[in-house]
Amino acid sequence: MIDFRSDNTGRAAPEILDAMIRANEGTALGYGADEWTARLQDRFSELFEARTRVFPVATGTAANALSLASLGPSWGLVYCSEAAHINTSEANAAGFFGGGLKLVQVAGQYGRVGADALAQALAGVLPGQTHRGAPAAVNLTQATDLGGVYSLDEIRAVAEVAKARGLKVHMDGARFANAVARLGCTPAEMSWKAGVDILSFGATKNGGALCDAIVVFDQSLAEGLAIQLRRAGQVWSKMRFASAQLMAYIEDGLWLRLAAASNAVAARIAAGIEGLTGLRLIAPVEANELFLDLPAGAMDTLERDGFQFYRRSATLARFVCRFDCTADEADALIASLRRICGAEKQAAE
Amino acid sequence: MIDFRSDNTGRAAPEILDAMIRANEGTALGYGADEWTARLQDRFSELFEARTRVFPVATGTAANALSLASLGPSWGLVYCSEAAHINTSEANAAGFFGGGLKLVQVAGQYGRVGADALAQALAGVLPGQTHRGAPAAVNLTQATDLGGVYSLDEIRAVAEVAKARGLKVHMDGARFANAVARLGCTPAEMSWKAGVDILSFGATKNGGALCDAIVVFDQSLAEGLAIQLRRAGQVWSKMRFASAQLMAYIEDGLWLRLAAASNAVAARIAAGIEGLTGLRLIAPVEANELFLDLPAGAMDTLERDGFQFYRRSATLARFVCRFDCTADEADALIASLRRICGAEKQAAE
Amino acid sequence: MIDFRSDNTGRAAPEILDAMIRANEGTALGYGADEWTARLQDRFSELFEARTRVFPVATGTAANALSLASLGPSWGLVYCSEAAHINTSEANAAGFFGGGLKLVQVAGQYGRVGADALAQALAGVLPGQTHRGAPAAVNLTQATDLGGVYSLDEIRAVAEVAKARGLKVHMDGARFANAVARLGCTPAEMSWKAGVDILSFGATKNGGALCDAIVVFDQSLAEGLAIQLRRAGQVWSKMRFASAQLMAYIEDGLWLRLAAASNAVAARIAAGIEGLTGLRLIAPVEANELFLDLPAGAMDTLERDGFQFYRRSATLARFVCRFDCTADEADALIASLRRICGAEKQAAE
Amino acid sequence: MIDFRSDNTGRAAPEILDAMIRANEGTALGYGADEWTARLQDRFSELFEARTRVFPVATGTAANALSLASLGPSWGLVYCSEAAHINTSEANAAGFFGGGLKLVQVAGQYGRVGADALAQALAGVLPGQTHRGAPAAVNLTQATDLGGVYSLDEIRAVAEVAKARGLKVHMDGARFANAVARLGCTPAEMSWKAGVDILSFGATKNGGALCDAIVVFDQSLAEGLAIQLRRAGQVWSKMRFASAQLMAYIEDGLWLRLAAASNAVAARIAAGIEGLTGLRLIAPVEANELFLDLPAGAMDTLERDGFQFYRRSATLARFVCRFDCTADEADALIASLRRICGAEKQAAE
Repeated sequence: MIDFRSDNTGRAAPEILDAMIRANEGTALGYGADEWTARLQDRFSELFEARTRVFPVATGTAANALSLASLGPSWGLVYCSEAAHINTSEANAAGFFGGGLKLVQVAGQYGRVGADALAQALAGVLPGQTHRGAPAAVNLTQATDLGGVYSLDEIRAVAEVAKARGLKVHMDGARFANAVARLGCTPAEMSWKAGVDILSFGATKNGGALCDAIVVFDQSLAEGLAIQLRRAGQVWSKMRFASAQLMAYIEDGLWLRLAAASNAVAARIAAGIEGLTGLRLIAPVEANELFLDLPAGAMDTLERDGFQFYRRSATLARFVCRFDCTADEADALIASLRRICGAEKQAAE
Repeated sequence: MIDFRSDNTGRAAPEILDAMIRANEGTALGYGADEWTARLQDRFSELFEARTRVFPVATGTAANALSLASLGPSWGLVYCSEAAHINTSEANAAGFFGGGLKLVQVAGQYGRVGADALAQALAGVLPGQTHRGAPAAVNLTQATDLGGVYSLDEIRAVAEVAKARGLKVHMDGARFANAVARLGCTPAEMSWKAGVDILSFGATKNGGALCDAIVVFDQSLAEGLAIQLRRAGQVWSKMRFASAQLMAYIEDGLWLRLAAASNAVAARIAAGIEGLTGLRLIAPVEANELFLDLPAGAMDTLERDGFQFYRRSATLARFVCRFDCTADEADALIASLRRICGAEKQAAE
Repeated sequence: MIDFRSDNTGRAAPEILDAMIRANEGTALGYGADEWTARLQDRFSELFEARTRVFPVATGTAANALSLASLGPSWGLVYCSEAAHINTSEANAAGFFGGGLKLVQVAGQYGRVGADALAQALAGVLPGQTHRGAPAAVNLTQATDLGGVYSLDEIRAVAEVAKARGLKVHMDGARFANAVARLGCTPAEMSWKAGVDILSFGATKNGGALCDAIVVFDQSLAEGLAIQLRRAGQVWSKMRFASAQLMAYIEDGLWLRLAAASNAVAARIAAGIEGLTGLRLIAPVEANELFLDLPAGAMDTLERDGFQFYRRSATLARFVCRFDCTADEADALIASLRRICGAEKQAAE
Repeated sequence: MIDFRSDNTGRAAPEILDAMIRANEGTALGYGADEWTARLQDRFSELFEARTRVFPVATGTAANALSLASLGPSWGLVYCSEAAHINTSEANAAGFFGGGLKLVQVAGQYGRVGADALAQALAGVLPGQTHRGAPAAVNLTQATDLGGVYSLDEIRAVAEVAKARGLKVHMDGARFANAVARLGCTPAEMSWKAGVDILSFGATKNGGALCDAIVVFDQSLAEGLAIQLRRAGQVWSKMRFASAQLMAYIEDGLWLRLAAASNAVAARIAAGIEGLTGLRLIAPVEANELFLDLPAGAMDTLERDGFQFYRRSATLARFVCRFDCTADEADALIASLRRICGAEKQAAE
C-alpha cells in the first residue's frame, strides 16, 4: 500500500523524538516554567525576528480555536473561507472556545479569503447593528485547505481590509512550513510583517509528533491566553517534552527541509500528470496536497493498485504528500494515473 | 538541590519515551483510528476487567473537566472537596467545559468528600428548585489533594449517596496509581466496582510524559465525549504516540512499580520524622505527598539546606515524592528536619 | 408618515394590557408558581389539543435560542434556512445558549428549508465523523423570513427527513399566528401533529407587548428547560403579568383576528400592485410581509411620500403590515407605487 | 392569609401599569430605538447625576449575570458574599453568561462582603498563577441578602480594595431603593461615587412589574453589553413598554416612597418584637426583610395563625415586607409572635 491519505498518517522526524529523550534529565518546574520552554521563547523570537510569545499546544484545533477566541468578544464574527479547516473539520471548536462566536464564510479562490469579498461582507454589518454581532477577526489558512498558498501580497491585502475595520488577523498555519518553503520568504514576512496578529504554527502535519504551537505577535493577547490555555487543559505539566519537540523542529532548518520534501513530491506528481485527460486538478498545486477531479471508477482502480487517499466526494480525490513520501511512490502514482487515463481515453474512443 | 516540589518536575520513565520511538514506524490513520489506540482499548479493558473506553488526553485538567462536563447538563452542580484539584488548581476548567456548571464544596477529612456531608448537601436542594441548579455529579480525588487515600468502603459510601439521588461519580485519579499501590486492590475495585462512572487516569505525575487518559465505564457517555474531545482540541492527529505512552505505562505493572517507589519514599520520610516536636503532619501520609505544619524559619533553613518544596502558606509546606526520588534524598530531608527541630526545641528551652 | 417598518413598531392590542391591570390583585407566588401561569398551561393544552408545557419568555430570540439549546448537545448542528431569523438577526444567540452549537444553512424556496436539501446536507455528515459535530435539530421559521408560509405537507416532509436521522424539530413561530390564519388549520396541525417538538410561539409581532412563549410538545425537554430558563434570566418573579398577557392573546381567538387583519392588509397591497412594471415581489405574499425589488430612486420617492419601510439592499425593500394597519394606508402605498411605476415606465419610454 | 413570603408576591404599583397603557400610542422603532427609551437615558442620567447608560432587562438574574459577565474575562473570579443572591439563587447564571467565570465567597457580616476579607482573599491569588484564574470583579448586594444595608463607607472600603487590584465593582441592587431610602443618600452616592462600575437596578421587588435594569457607569462597558443583551434575548422589540415602566418607577420619587413604605413595615415589626424571648433576629433589620431564629413549633403556630413566610431552615424564618403591606398586618404578626413567645416562655417555666 502507498499512503497518500494525510500528512498526519506519517512518522515523526526522528530528530523530534530524540529531543524528548535528551530532555529527560533532572527536574524542572512544571507548566512551562522550565528552561526548555524559556529557550523556546528566545528561539521563536529569533526565528520570527520579533519578540514573540510561543505556547505549545496539543493540537491544531486547540491552536486555532484558542487563538480565535483570544481575538474578540464572544459575540464576535470570524470571517473565513468556506473550505477553512476551522469551518469544516474542527467540530466548531472556535464557536465553543469562543463562547458562541460565529464563523462567516467569505468567497475566494482555491480556499482563500478574498480581500474584496471580505470588504463586501464587512460592508454588510454596520456598527450598532447589535442583532448581527460584531466583526472581530479574519482567519487565513496558509497553505489553504485546497492546496494553495497565499502570496504575501494576498495576505497583506486581506489584512489591510481587516485592520481598516478593526479586525484582528489569525493565520491557521497547519502547513505554515509548506507555505514558507514554497514562497522562499521569511517566517516574519509571512506573518506579522504581513499583518498577522496570532499564528497557529503547525508541526504535526510536517514531521512533528504530539504538539503544535500558538505564536503571539500582538503581546496584549498573551496574558489572558496563558490563563485560557491552562483552563483549556492545554498546558502540560511536563511542558519540557513539548518544548523540546518544537525546538528540534525548527533547529537547523529541519522544518523547512521536511516541508520542501513533501512539497517536492506533490510537485513531481502534478508535473507527471499534466495534460492527462480524464482528470483535472481543481486547484494549482502549491504545497503538499493535490485535489483531483476524476471518475469514481478511476478511484476504484487506484485503490486496487494499492494507493490510499481520501474521497472527498464521488468525483473528488485528495492526495497528501508527507515529508517521507518518496519519488518512487510519486512515480508509481503517476504511472497508475497515466494508465487509468489512457484506459479511460480508449474507453471513450 | 534536592527537589520535593512536585511529581511533575520529574523525569519520564524511560520505558515510556522508548515506546514512542518504537511507534514511529510506517503510516497509521489519524485521530485515534490507528492500531496502537485500538490495542489500548483492549489493554485497558483487561486491566479494568470490563469493557472500557479509554481516551488519551493531553492533561489532567482536560481529563477532569471533560469528564465532569460529560456527566450532566450545563446547569449541573458538581460536589467536591474544598481541597479538590478541580476547585483550586484548574482555573475553573470544569465550569468552562461544563458550560457554566458549578462546583459545590463538601466537607470531609484530609481532602475527602464525606458521605454524610454529601447527603446533607444534597438534602438542601429539593427537586423543582430551579434557582439552585441540579445536582449532577460528585468528584473524588484519589489519592486526595492532602495526601490521603480513600478506602474502598469510603468510595462506596460516597457513591451510594450519589446514586441514590441520581448523581454520577467521577474520580480524579491524577494519583490513581499511588492509591492502588497503597491499598493493594485491583483497579476495578477502586473504580467501577465501587461506583465510579468515569475516571481521570493520571500518568504524568507518575513517570508519564505528555498524556493522561479518560477511562469511561458508563458506555452511554462515550459517543458524545468523543465529539467533545475532538472539539476541545484533545484528539491528537498522531494519536499513536500518545497511545504508545499509555501502553508502556501499564505494561508489566510499570505504573504500580513507579507509584510504589514514590509512596515508599514518602512513607520513609513520615517514619523518620515521627515524634519530632516543632512540626506536624496535617494529614496521614498515605500516598506520595507530605503536608507539614512548621515554622517559617524552619522552611527558610530547609531551603538553605538545599531542599526545594512548595510553601502553601506561612506555616504549611508540601513535599512531593517522585518515582525517582531516592532513599538518600529522603534521609537527607529527615536529617535536616531533625536538626531544625532540635534547634527549635533548644531555642524554646 | 405611514409606517411599514416592522410588526414590532406597533401598539399592543388593548386587551393584552388590560389583562395585566386585571392581574394586579392580591399576592401570588413568584417565578411561575401562580394561578395565572397554571391556567396558562391548561389553556395552551386545550389550544394545542395535547398536554403541553408553556414557558413565557421575554423575547423571540430567547424563545428560539433556548429552544434550540434544549434539543441537543453543545456540539450539535442545527439546520436552517440562510434567511432564518436565528441565522441573520439574533447575534448568534443559538450558538451562545447552545454552548457552541453551529447553524448550518440549507437551501429552500422563499426562506424555507427544503426537505430534499436537508436530506442531502444530512447525507454529508456520517456517524462517527467527530470532526463535523453531530446533526441535532432543524429549524423552520413559520411564516418564513421572506413572507412565505410552509404548507402542512412541507412541514411534514422536513420533519420526516429530520426524524429519520434522529433530529428534533423546532419551529420559530414569531409569526405562527399569521401562518395559522393563512392556512386555516389548527395550531396542533401546524405543530406537533406535523412533527414539531418545540415551538417559539410569538405574540409580540402580532399585538403582544412584552412576552412571547416556548411551547414544549416533547415533555422530556421540559424539566431541564425550566432550569435553563431560570439561569437565563427568563423567568420573571412576577410571572403573572406575563402569563396574563398570553392568556388574553389567545382568548376568544384574539390572536387569529389580529393576524388575519395584518395578513389582509398585505394581501390588499399585493393585489393592488399586481402587474406593475418596475417592481417585483421576490416571494409570494402569504403572510403580512412584502419584499419588493424596486429601484433605489423609487425607494427615495416612497420615503418622500411619507412611507417608512426597511431597505434590505440597494434594490430590496421590505414592507411589514401590522394588525392595526388600515386599508387606507395600504391604498396610499398602492397609489404611490402605481404613480412611481408609471413615472418609471414613462422615463423608460 | 397575611403574606410575608417575598416582595415578588406583591402587586405592581398602579402608576407603573398605567404608564404602559399611556405608551400604547402610535408606532415606534423596536429594540430600544424609541423615544421612551431615549428619555429613559436622560432621566437616569439626571437621577444618577452622571451620564449613564440604562438597559431595561426582564429580570434581576439577567441584570446580575450580564453585568458580571461584562466586567471581565471568562476566566475571571468574582468575589461575593456566601449569602449573595448570585451565589444561592440564580442557578449559576453568572457562571453561564460569564462563560465559566467562578464565584468566590468572601466572609462578611450579615450578608456583606468585608473589605478586609476581600483583601485577604485577593492576597491569595498572585499574578501569574494561571491555574487560579484572574480576580476580575466584586459583587455587593445592596440591601444585603440578610436584610442589612452597607453604609457608604463600607461600600467605599470594599471598592477601594477592589480597585487597588484592578477589579471592577458590581452592585446587585435588587433592593437598591430600600437601601437609598434607609440611608437617605443620593443614588449617585451609593453607586458610582462610592466606586460602583455597574448596577443591577431592581424594580420588580419594589412595586415593578416585568422589568429591572442595568445601569452602566463605566461607559467602556456599554457597547459590548448592548450586543450581549441582544444575544441574551433581553432586548424587547417593543422596548417602549419596558422603558415606560422604569420611567414611571422613578417619576416623582415613586420608587423611594414605595421602598420607604416597605422598610417602615419591617421596622415596625422589628420594634414590636424587640426583647421577646424565644426568638432572635439573626441580623439587624435595615431594609424590608426580617430573619428570625425561632423554634419550628413557633413557625407551625404562625402558619396556623394565617401567616405566610419562608422557612429557610428548621429554625430560621424569613419575613419580607412589601410596599403594600399594612401596619395592621405588621401588628397582627407582632401580636402573634408575642403570644407565641409568651406561650413558649410559660412552657419553659
